Amino acid sequence: MQALCLEKKQLILQDNIPIPEPLASEALVRVHLAGICATDLELVKGYYPYTGILGHEFVGEIVQAVNAPERIGERVVGEINVACGMCETCLRGQTTHCERRTVLGIVNRDGAFAEYLCLPLKNLIPVPASIPNEAAVFTEPLAAALEIQAQVTIRPTDQVLVVGAGRLGLLIAQTLVLTGCQLQVVARHDKQQQLLAARQIAWIDENSVQSRAFGVVIEATGSTGGFRLARQAVRPRGTIVLKSTYQGDSSINFSALVVDEISLVGSRCGPFAPALRLLENRLVDPTLLIDDCFPLDKALDAFERVVQPGVLKVLLST
Amino acid sequence: MQALCLEKKQLILQDNIPIPEPLASEALVRVHLAGICATDLELVKGYYPYTGILGHEFVGEIVQAVNAPERIGERVVGEINVACGMCETCLRGQTTHCERRTVLGIVNRDGAFAEYLCLPLKNLIPVPASIPNEAAVFTEPLAAALEIQAQVTIRPTDQVLVVGAGRLGLLIAQTLVLTGCQLQVVARHDKQQQLLAARQIAWIDENSVQSRAFGVVIEATGSTGGFRLARQAVRPRGTIVLKSTYQGDSSINFSALVVDEISLVGSRCGPFAPALRLLENRLVDPTLLIDDCFPLDKALDAFERVVQPGVLKVLLST
Ligand SMILES: [Zn+2]
Ligand SMILES: [Zn+2]
Ligand SMILES: [Zn+2]
Ligand SMILES: [Zn+2]
Repeated sequence: MQALCLEKKQLILQDNIPIPEPLASEALVRVHLAGICATDLELVKGYYPYTGILGHEFVGEIVQAVNAPERIGERVVGEINVACGMCETCLRGQTTHCERRTVLGIVNRDGAFAEYLCLPLKNLIPVPASIPNEAAVFTEPLAAALEIQAQVTIRPTDQVLVVGAGRLGLLIAQTLVLTGCQLQVVARHDKQQQLLAARQIAWIDENSVQSRAFGVVIEATGSTGGFRLARQAVRPRGTIVLKSTYQGDSSINFSALVVDEISLVGSRCGPFAPALRLLENRLVDPTLLIDDCFPLDKALDAFERVVQPGVLKVLLST
Repeated sequence: MQALCLEKKQLILQDNIPIPEPLASEALVRVHLAGICATDLELVKGYYPYTGILGHEFVGEIVQAVNAPERIGERVVGEINVACGMCETCLRGQTTHCERRTVLGIVNRDGAFAEYLCLPLKNLIPVPASIPNEAAVFTEPLAAALEIQAQVTIRPTDQVLVVGAGRLGLLIAQTLVLTGCQLQVVARHDKQQQLLAARQIAWIDENSVQSRAFGVVIEATGSTGGFRLARQAVRPRGTIVLKSTYQGDSSINFSALVVDEISLVGSRCGPFAPALRLLENRLVDPTLLIDDCFPLDKALDAFERVVQPGVLKVLLST
């Protein structure tokens, strides 16, 4: 089969990769559509060591499943963390933190920029018929956006700021606005501002952010500047949610966190079921973010497109 | 009156300070006993700019109160943050974070290392007769210890680590053990270990701390090394409570916080009423921490004593 592989920071489109063979607990999935995200770009930059097929956001169809033949033909999305199910962390129910986990296209498990992939049956979640592939492919990042509300209580009375209106920031904004909170999103680019305005979400310029005013601030830029702005914007006793990864170490004044009793909350992967419910109910529309779609054999072009200024989501169809 | 003043990092014992005159909303308090804490030592080192009478932990007696003559003679402790009562933060009930606050012996308000002090009547809380002065003088730091549980839910099933068994760490340990949680305290010195053992609290050596095991870790050392140990000890999705102030900026890997979904919670002043209840019920015994008591006119000796290795609490009687 064809697949986009990462080897020593090199993206290589390969044609002669054998179709993977699922374990008895797994299914073989024919990938229909996959999305490129910031994590893929960071893996290419070498921020994390990974060798293998890239890609973790996908929608596809089960084509082989020894232990569940009744699921063949099911359209599915997939929870990307494959947990051991037996360690203390797993038994506590925190399978996305299993210390022995593999992660689709990220840690020791071939990913979704390929014609086929393997995942455990329990990771594969059926997609309701009313959700088109172009929306379903956003289930994973939408779940990551919802992880914020799985961790932090957002009250309808809260004043909430999202710093950054990129791929993830825009999904986060679409989920937060559903709480009825008083939401503002820091957006730099015209297109981001228009997308937000189209959803009746208030955007502001980074120079117009009110200081020490927001009960909850979501940092979705992954930059030191973004964190600095979040720190200025949060009110005493407020919470900053760190929703991006950052390169290297950052410098922070702990005493000021103590004096202002600020909480910092790291936030990563989230729950798929509520993400699918919001897509089914059409309460969020991630398809607004799609800029382009390339066939898998043009995957290298897709990676050139996605890093162009202002480009949000680029998909790969297989 | 006599008072211990701080001026340009110099401690000066002065004899001829006029007795302060309370506003109509305030009372004049005759200080009986006051405690020296880490914040006082940091103010002397010049970490924060402050000029005036030092001291914020005290027990005393109301001797003058124009608007509440019935309270004269009341034995009281005092909430140290004096809030405006009118700003947004105050109206939200977060008076300890009022942006216009003064703080007894810390920010723009003369403190407790003196024969008399002034505080608003609403800051002064009566001390039940069964609590001796030697215990009541710990109300403020005990309230700060309880602020942890005002911010973070500690479940009886949680595995909890306190890093640091100094003045504040020992009070924190005494309050946390009341939750029934599985508590361990990192203690370096013999005396700290003995005090913990006497309260049936498990202490451990810093080299024996289990990695990635604790749902909640309290950092009570105020040192980078203490934070590093806390970060190692906390499990994925766990919480680190920062309970000390730190000099300068610290370096931290935000990505690791995101991947492990760690929460950092800054924690400062806490609620007095529950602290007094625990003292009244004898569920905590802070008097174990007392190493020495000096009369106010020997305050400079007290400051030399308190920085000696292994010394915990030093009191000033006036
Ligand atoms: Zn992603
Ligand atoms: Zn596991
Ligand atoms: Zn103190
Ligand atoms: Zn105020």
